[in-house]
Amino acid sequence: MSLDLQQVFDFAIQLSFRAGKAITEGSETRFKNAEKLVRDAIQAKYPDHEFIGEESWAAGDEGALTDAPTWIIDPIDGTTNFVKGMPHVCISIGFVYNSVPTIGVIYAPFMGQLFAGRKGHGAFMTSSMHPERHALPLAKPLPFVSLKQALVAFEWGSDRSNTVMEKKSRTFKRLAGDSANGVDGGEMVLGVRSMGSAALNFAHVACGSLDSYWEIGCWAWDVCAGIVIAGEAGCAVVGSKEQARGAVQSGEWPPAVTPAVLTGRKYLV
Amino acid sequence: MSLDLQQVFDFAIQLSFRAGKAITEGSETRFKNAEKLVRDAIQAKYPDHEFIGEESWAAGDEGALTDAPTWIIDPIDGTTNFVKGMPHVCISIGFVYNSVPTIGVIYAPFMGQLFAGRKGHGAFMTSSMHPERHALPLAKPLPFVSLKQALVAFEWGSDRSNTVMEKKSRTFKRLAGDSANGVDGGEMVLGVRSMGSAALNFAHVACGSLDSYWEIGCWAWDVCAGIVIAGEAGCAVVGSKEQARGAVQSGEWPPAVTPAVLTGRKYLV
Repeated sequence: MSLDLQQVFDFAIQLSFRAGKAITEGSETRFKNAEKLVRDAIQAKYPDHEFIGEESWAAGDEGALTDAPTWIIDPIDGTTNFVKGMPHVCISIGFVYNSVPTIGVIYAPFMGQLFAGRKGHGAFMTSSMHPERHALPLAKPLPFVSLKQALVAFEWGSDRSNTVMEKKSRTFKRLAGDSANGVDGGEMVLGVRSMGSAALNFAHVACGSLDSYWEIGCWAWDVCAGIVIAGEAGCAVVGSKEQARGAVQSGEWPPAVTPAVLTGRKYLV
Repeated sequence: MSLDLQQVFDFAIQLSFRAGKAITEGSETRFKNAEKLVRDAIQAKYPDHEFIGEESWAAGDEGALTDAPTWIIDPIDGTTNFVKGMPHVCISIGFVYNSVPTIGVIYAPFMGQLFAGRKGHGAFMTSSMHPERHALPLAKPLPFVSLKQALVAFEWGSDRSNTVMEKKSRTFKRLAGDSANGVDGGEMVLGVRSMGSAALNFAHVACGSLDSYWEIGCWAWDVCAGIVIAGEAGCAVVGSKEQARGAVQSGEWPPAVTPAVLTGRKYLV
């Protein structure tokens, strides 16, 4: 029996609202149960599906992808923001079917924003101020003329070893620096943002409010939902330097549509 | 006749709502008139007060502080966010009386958050979800044990010359890097945020959701309101390396309360 993917999609959206309610109403203790809430709901609805999440991974399950339908979930992306009381927090629900990221739902409960996409069927967002569905990107992207007009996100992440910090610092300086004022090769991007949620960075590139997101060291649960949403919004999602180079050479990136760039381990492109 | 400062405070709050409405409802063209809207309203209400804003400064008025009551205003702090459609945008209204920053109002219209403070009378916030006034900081700050538990904001700013980039990159790496994994002197702060609004960084330190904000190169209109609000919330606001060192030596910083650290030109501490 083939899976009703629209039903899975609707279920994922409702599940994100349930988890969001638990998070906004719950205490920090309850938040630790958010993954269990999500996992239990999926197991009840789709008992034969696989599940990959940070907690199960940390518990020793490597979470390698199989051919089975697989949910890849971060019940709270932006944990530090959550703990500190910053609203930049989301639930990220990805679903992989036939080894392809197929459904993505990102819900930011404190900001009332939902971003959702289904492979081949587009992506949309809703917000508490605009509850009707708006297709992503929200506006037709302008031609990508120069990085000087780009708002670029990247995060400092939790791996801050010297190797990673050297690479990040060099890239940040190169992107942000002003070559007209002494920074060798500086691209002088319009602005640089670090808001502490990989999934929301994908969502904001999909909207068009960020032009790019660059990262080292994401995990599957950070990016699975975002890959679907950004891809359906017309973004280029690339998983390695070589792939990025290929995209640039083919004219796919920098593209007319807003690009998301991803490098690192454990991505799903 | 002495000035009724509570009346000035109430006026500033109402003015921030008016400007916020103009911004959320207006087009980009209208946003360019936001400073005029604010300036005109102040001139009508307090014709003998001085005014310092980015536009008037750019127009050749150096905006040096005099003894007169002076409004120091950024009608849109987070301009890049505004242009790109990110909600992290605010109106920053500061008021200097007898050469002392005395009233500060920061209103983030897309997020419905108001932060306000009056020297000697405390600071508070309201939000569309919680319209009653909550004193700042929102919770009693925990003792400051280590930078490893701190969420730190800094911005890349618009001056990205080699001198500034070198200083910023070095500081970022030192704060964020992991000394246990090869970064010499790395403090391994909990997280690093760049959200693109100096005024909102002050506001979030005042709330307690950020632990610190470090910057090079702010202007008076970026910080005047924030200095009052953060100060009234019990934050340490320091304007130079020497002042920061003094604060550390006196035990004022890192303090039991959340600190904001500011260095650079044109600050008002």
